[in-house]
Amino acid sequence: MQRTEIATLGEFGLIKHLTENIELKNESSKYGIGDDCAVMQYPAEKQVLVTTDLLMEGVHFDLTYVPLKHLGYKAAMVNLSDIYAMNGTPRQMVVSIALSKRFCIEDMEAFYDGLKLACENHGVDIVGGDTTSSLTGLAISITCIGDADKDKVVYRNGAHDTDLICVSGDLGAAYMGLQLLEREKRVFQSQKQEGTAAEDMAQPDFAGKEYLLERQLKPEARKDIIEKLAAAGIKPTAMMDISDGLSSELLHICTQSGVGCRVYEERIPLDYQTAVMAEELNMNVTTCALNGGEDYELLFTVPIGCHEQIEQIEGIKMIGHITKKDLGCALITRDGNEFELKAQGWNPLK
Amino acid sequence: MQRTEIATLGEFGLIKHLTENIELKNESSKYGIGDDCAVMQYPAEKQVLVTTDLLMEGVHFDLTYVPLKHLGYKAAMVNLSDIYAMNGTPRQMVVSIALSKRFCIEDMEAFYDGLKLACENHGVDIVGGDTTSSLTGLAISITCIGDADKDKVVYRNGAHDTDLICVSGDLGAAYMGLQLLEREKRVFQSQKQEGTAAEDMAQPDFAGKEYLLERQLKPEARKDIIEKLAAAGIKPTAMMDISDGLSSELLHICTQSGVGCRVYEERIPLDYQTAVMAEELNMNVTTCALNGGEDYELLFTVPIGCHEQIEQIEGIKMIGHITKKDLGCALITRDGNEFELKAQGWNPLK
Repeated sequence: MQRTEIATLGEFGLIKHLTENIELKNESSKYGIGDDCAVMQYPAEKQVLVTTDLLMEGVHFDLTYVPLKHLGYKAAMVNLSDIYAMNGTPRQMVVSIALSKRFCIEDMEAFYDGLKLACENHGVDIVGGDTTSSLTGLAISITCIGDADKDKVVYRNGAHDTDLICVSGDLGAAYMGLQLLEREKRVFQSQKQEGTAAEDMAQPDFAGKEYLLERQLKPEARKDIIEKLAAAGIKPTAMMDISDGLSSELLHICTQSGVGCRVYEERIPLDYQTAVMAEELNMNVTTCALNGGEDYELLFTVPIGCHEQIEQIEGIKMIGHITKKDLGCALITRDGNEFELKAQGWNPLK
Repeated sequence: MQRTEIATLGEFGLIKHLTENIELKNESSKYGIGDDCAVMQYPAEKQVLVTTDLLMEGVHFDLTYVPLKHLGYKAAMVNLSDIYAMNGTPRQMVVSIALSKRFCIEDMEAFYDGLKLACENHGVDIVGGDTTSSLTGLAISITCIGDADKDKVVYRNGAHDTDLICVSGDLGAAYMGLQLLEREKRVFQSQKQEGTAAEDMAQPDFAGKEYLLERQLKPEARKDIIEKLAAAGIKPTAMMDISDGLSSELLHICTQSGVGCRVYEERIPLDYQTAVMAEELNMNVTTCALNGGEDYELLFTVPIGCHEQIEQIEGIKMIGHITKKDLGCALITRDGNEFELKAQGWNPLK
């Protein structure tokens, strides 16, 4: 692959090269890249939503198996998912990158290709950012801005006793994808240590596990679910996206809403590949689904009266219900036992 | 100094600890920290301004001589300055930090003290962010959001032939402050290498150079200049803040406005301490003022008819004028020679 040093373009040249074909598509995007600030204008009835994520190499991603195009796509999705989790529509994004000398222009092109694809698919304008250098790894900071009608914004604190707990898609697959990639990385490294020639190395066999890889490397923020709920006239009472794991997120909703919950193990949506992989790794698949994280699915609560409507929406599963606070937060296992839910999800600072 | 490990609080505990006393003060701040997004609402006649900066340890700051409280203050100022440079008012800020195990809770308290002080002084609400870990140094990403009446926003591209070029404050001092700190760091390190006992080490003598240190360690975004211009009824034709150096920024304005310029060396505002320090270091003080950067002063152009009004505003200096494009961009030296202006400012990727 060609390798062109970033120094040949410099900061301003690189930014220009990566962003010159960007066209602003949202009515609210008034001025994009090129001045001290991006300029937006929103109608008075809209509320403006802002979310930000900082992704660090070695902590949030491992470039030995994550292609930069996928990284760009995922970095965008992580932020888009937070806008949808407020029942909003993402509109703009500012993207900052700090890179070391080991990255070349072609690397940044690949990253931006992924980023732009994600933005295109979700109707988002890249309106600014910062490009600078790093002494060590890659750092990516994205801030995403969206809007929503004032009466449509959904917080984490609105769940009520008897509400139904719903989740989109299936859980635990991204975590299984990560385990799979980490396993293959270990195999590769031990072969390398043993001095195996490149052509003799065992090639990773991902057959039958494509879904797990896709969920880890190319997650998709659930715009479709927000649209389906709106079409059905349903406004969730509380909502958030599942990034740290179902348990952790459910506890956030319950704490902030001042309620308890009951979740049924048998109702937690799992993909077949997730179950097979958990078996293969001798892990409990429910634990993976509860605590794995990086699902970027939506977790939300709706009034019990929405039961039939929700049942008819494809891709949404009712997994339990909200209770009074003093009943606590518990998982009901397949055999009818009750376990207290604990946040064992990803915590970068523990 | 006390040192409490961050792991004792974890991510959510740390965020709560650092942000629990934050009160939202702006009418436009509807919901701050604690959900998937911050929520804002702006009047329809306002445009919304967004700027972002990513600061990396070892590239943008050196913790051997930058106290964390100052770093928090400066990280905020860098962003506030960009909002003022659009003739706007900063309103909200989201703050992301990635930190390694070497940082403790007290470090983060100091950083947040500086951040909060800056926000308090400028009426800005901290509404969100991301706190995560880093394998190596500290990374700080701040996105600042402001607003401005639609007809008041000032871009870089509005300068016209005959406009006056103005600059606030004085230039080059922050760069001299950096040289001073770097020099003392080298002295300290060489004493350490020679095994000098701590009590025998020469203490850095900053007497008479306090202004240079303050300009480097605790810059102040020029809210006052924006207010004075508004009070005088002056709307600049073009404006930006000086972060990379006067030369570099002037060229941005000229390129984007399709004009040329003449700047007079004798008119470039310099502080006495800057001149003394340049002499001491055997550097050309004009070069420092043109290319040093980190001044966070405002560079702007006004119609020639504003000459008398500008003259009466304290803290603003007219340093030259805009010309037709084909005359190019030049500095007129004290002895009347003309030199082409070049962007030799800070470029992190060269």
